[in-house]
Amino acid sequence: MTTGLFIAIEGGEGAGKSTHSKRLAEYLQSLGHEVVLTREPGGTPTAEKIRKILLDPEITDMPDHTEALLFAASRADHAANLIRPALERGATVICDRYFDSSVAYQGFSRGLGAEKVRDLSLWATGNLIPDFTIYLDVPAEAGEQRMDGTDRMEIQSRDFHEAVHQAFRDIAAGSPYPNVVIDATAPKDDVAAAIRIAIDGVLESR
Amino acid sequence: MTTGLFIAIEGGEGAGKSTHSKRLAEYLQSLGHEVVLTREPGGTPTAEKIRKILLDPEITDMPDHTEALLFAASRADHAANLIRPALERGATVICDRYFDSSVAYQGFSRGLGAEKVRDLSLWATGNLIPDFTIYLDVPAEAGEQRMDGTDRMEIQSRDFHEAVHQAFRDIAAGSPYPNVVIDATAPKDDVAAAIRIAIDGVLESR
Repeated sequence: MTTGLFIAIEGGEGAGKSTHSKRLAEYLQSLGHEVVLTREPGGTPTAEKIRKILLDPEITDMPDHTEALLFAASRADHAANLIRPALERGATVICDRYFDSSVAYQGFSRGLGAEKVRDLSLWATGNLIPDFTIYLDVPAEAGEQRMDGTDRMEIQSRDFHEAVHQAFRDIAAGSPYPNVVIDATAPKDDVAAAIRIAIDGVLESR
Repeated sequence: MTTGLFIAIEGGEGAGKSTHSKRLAEYLQSLGHEVVLTREPGGTPTAEKIRKILLDPEITDMPDHTEALLFAASRADHAANLIRPALERGATVICDRYFDSSVAYQGFSRGLGAEKVRDLSLWATGNLIPDFTIYLDVPAEAGEQRMDGTDRMEIQSRDFHEAVHQAFRDIAAGSPYPNVVIDATAPKDDVAAAIRIAIDGVLESR
């Protein structure tokens, strides 16, 4: 039984997820919410250890299955030890990436299969699904200009990142869960405003 | 297509797996085999990083799903980057623990379900199944006397280890794959001889 609101912010590299996660957190705090702002992979001590392996640019031979299983392992820890307890005490959780990232990156772009990868996350988390997902839509080329380009996921090819971008569009279009797709090539303040409007709608409907 | 022989040695803590893996490796080398002696979790650089997390006694809040997924992630790396290449060049691989350990520990003793955990390993490894499995059978109490008792798995309760012992017996009894169960409370030399006899039979049948 969870009572808090669970919001996921999804999108490719350089889409502005961390910037807009922070801005949304500030907005919801200004409305009086207890906000837990977190991100994946990571968010808990064990998940951060797993994150280090996942993003280590020195690892050049990681099998796709290992990558998918490490993301699921970190998510299981994050869900059990941080997200669920926060939701249970009524907090609003904003998560920078959640299972749709695995579906996009490992399911679609690595070719492991969307359904298989989604099922893995659902099993890992005991079916912990966001109440609302915000997809920040940015073509790979535009996203590249904003990224640091140093971690193992960022240094994948542009084709890979463009496949991720298309995958997020397909996921959003086919999602059975409440969500909004926002054009994140727009000016930052406009994107932030669009996110606030979407969340206002979610809050009103609760 | 693999041509080498893949042998797994399974059993609870203190069953003598590493001792007998080494002795079997020496025996097979004396017969002229190229032997790759390895162990789980670990065996490759990435899998060893995952092993560190899995066995870290400071981590006291690891969810069962995280544990199962980390074992599967390390196995995927081990299978793709060490075991398969070795088998493909015709080497004999001796692996101290493989997927039956996950089935026993996470499937049975943690209660995640034997079939689910086995399926996870089969998916992780592209259905890489040992040609022959040796189960070293030791009651938890006898095994405890031989273990160091320092890693996160070893420091579980005696009830946990006894459940693992029973789980290995059930797995061996129901296994569709070639295997032998050896009473590992017998003197070391007798156990080593029983293993050699079993492997001689496997080699003759190939």
